[in-house]
Amino acid sequence: MPKTEFYYFPIKGLGEQIRLLLAYGGEDWNDNRVTPEDWPNFKPKTPFGQMPVLEVDGKQRAQSMAISRYLGRKHGLAGATIEEDFLIDQSVEFLNDIRAKAAQVQYEPDEALKAKKHEDFSKNVYPTLLAKLDQILEENNGHLALGKLTWADFVFAGIYQYLKVMLQSPDLDSKFPRFKKLEQTVYSIPKVKAFADAAPKCDI
Amino acid sequence: MPKTEFYYFPIKGLGEQIRLLLAYGGEDWNDNRVTPEDWPNFKPKTPFGQMPVLEVDGKQRAQSMAISRYLGRKHGLAGATIEEDFLIDQSVEFLNDIRAKAAQVQYEPDEALKAKKHEDFSKNVYPTLLAKLDQILEENNGHLALGKLTWADFVFAGIYQYLKVMLQSPDLDSKFPRFKKLEQTVYSIPKVKAFADAAPKCDI
Repeated sequence: MPKTEFYYFPIKGLGEQIRLLLAYGGEDWNDNRVTPEDWPNFKPKTPFGQMPVLEVDGKQRAQSMAISRYLGRKHGLAGATIEEDFLIDQSVEFLNDIRAKAAQVQYEPDEALKAKKHEDFSKNVYPTLLAKLDQILEENNGHLALGKLTWADFVFAGIYQYLKVMLQSPDLDSKFPRFKKLEQTVYSIPKVKAFADAAPKCDI
Repeated sequence: MPKTEFYYFPIKGLGEQIRLLLAYGGEDWNDNRVTPEDWPNFKPKTPFGQMPVLEVDGKQRAQSMAISRYLGRKHGLAGATIEEDFLIDQSVEFLNDIRAKAAQVQYEPDEALKAKKHEDFSKNVYPTLLAKLDQILEENNGHLALGKLTWADFVFAGIYQYLKVMLQSPDLDSKFPRFKKLEQTVYSIPKVKAFADAAPKCDI
């Protein structure tokens, strides 16, 4: 099997889901963690000026969800039909809606505006979205789709810690125990656990 | 074939790509255009409090890109392998990055901040993104992936007019002739043209 090179910042962010899928798939890969200092040199060499980037046989692949879907299908974590794949995609896109909403707060440079947005979303946006996410897990046996493990769960496990930070909700684990449980479900898969135990620790 | 109900606002927005794919697929469907006045009544009946919604046999499907991918695969507009599907997804996700960036400006309620953001993005963000998009079309025979018509092109054609408005760039057609050409390529497919000719006119 050819060596695969994976490039992302030294955080979980939008890269961890891919690391987890590569580990699950038992691929022969290097986990390159590009520091913010090295990023300006590497950036022009990436397809879209963004990470994550997955390089296989010298060919670069970009876009986190596209790579995750690809690896999910490659390693038997997708649906059996296009209808089943749709249900996975629907949940992933919804999860991404929540992430994008929280990112609007997280990446707001104006501190006063950031506080105002957080207050607004905490009151008017997050409760409905998080309750819906919890409902999806309840209806799917603790998973995001099909009532079983799919690549959508890896996306969730990869972004959960960062999502908690962006939502400014350290008590998310206790408010929605199904969230923490799903993260643990993925991280306790033996090959995933072996990777995570040996990987550099990062909080987000 | 069972009747399909499609629900979206009376604009192109994130719904047109699905209308174009339904038309292309020759499906038996109703193009329900929900007015802003009717939306508050319908909203609680949707899976995520959002449109578009596609209803088949009474089952609701949501999330625009997930629905588009599903219809693309259903109607022979996807790749032949998971690698080819990845290339389609990669382009769609990149296109969505551009849309999301422009939407940050479009949906900014503070007029002064909106103008400031637009100036910043027009100088520092859009040029690189649009040049990259143009390069993708150049390398793919005028298409977004695989050098041929795929569902990614329907996504592009569906959002192009709105993108132009959000980018505040009425001269986009002349700056990047490949963009307009791709929109026309999709809208000139006979079944798509028949739908568009009969559909209510909308600018965005």
